[in-house]
Amino acid sequence: MKDAEKTDSRPADLAAIGLDGYAPYLMNRIMGRYNATLRAEMGALGLSTAKMRALAILSARDGLQMSALGVYAVVEQSTLSRAIEGLETDGLVTRQTDEIDHRASRITLTAVGRAAFDRLWPHMLDAHDAMFAGITAGEREAFLTTLRQMLRNIRKHDF
Amino acid sequence: MKDAEKTDSRPADLAAIGLDGYAPYLMNRIMGRYNATLRAEMGALGLSTAKMRALAILSARDGLQMSALGVYAVVEQSTLSRAIEGLETDGLVTRQTDEIDHRASRITLTAVGRAAFDRLWPHMLDAHDAMFAGITAGEREAFLTTLRQMLRNIRKHDF
Repeated sequence: MKDAEKTDSRPADLAAIGLDGYAPYLMNRIMGRYNATLRAEMGALGLSTAKMRALAILSARDGLQMSALGVYAVVEQSTLSRAIEGLETDGLVTRQTDEIDHRASRITLTAVGRAAFDRLWPHMLDAHDAMFAGITAGEREAFLTTLRQMLRNIRKHDF
Repeated sequence: MKDAEKTDSRPADLAAIGLDGYAPYLMNRIMGRYNATLRAEMGALGLSTAKMRALAILSARDGLQMSALGVYAVVEQSTLSRAIEGLETDGLVTRQTDEIDHRASRITLTAVGRAAFDRLWPHMLDAHDAMFAGITAGEREAFLTTLRQMLRNIRKHDF
């Protein structure tokens, strides 16, 4: 199989390019470790992965509708609904009916929710910095540029 | 907050660098879409995400022990055990007791399992190629180099 391969042809199998040559494998490994690290650190604060991601996204994009929040946070709508209910009960977010689309609601961080994110953020930053150790600013910028292009390539939404 | 920031200081919050400047956000979005695409396509073949990943890893690293397979595939041991039992029942893998460590077993693809992977691989390759559309070979190589460094930075195992 390998002898028949040309540089521009499609590799015959995963062994032909190797695990380390298949970006989704590397990204799954990296994100698995990132998510496990934050889950372990934030479990003590009573924050599930869905709650953490909702707080983080809202800290940067407040007032999102539930459906858009689910896309940004990569959390299924049913899981997200439960997470937002929990955050609302604990006073971290509020829900308001959308002024234009009355069937939809917009989620907003409260001051308590903002304070919870402020405790979460140093852990997110540490996890981020651990990933990029030994990687130059230029390499990181090139990496981010490629990631943005990849997301534009495969996302189903306009954001 | 933003005025106080210097280029080399730690950003005050996620809004300061933006979602598109935080690599784990972009990687979660991309991998969420990649995994959803393969799950939808492979569900018809009766392959769960855990089974798909086990077949893919074994196609490149046959004869792994269960614990190492879980690390490579980023699947919890309990979920992986059930997936491997299912694959064994269906004749896609076999388990042999390790010759040195008699408490451990090694998982091997059968010819039927290899054939199942061969049906999965074109979908994995399509998902990969869709990600990298419009990205040059040089950019892709730089991206892979950064990913490999990131995995070395944060992994808990020697592989």
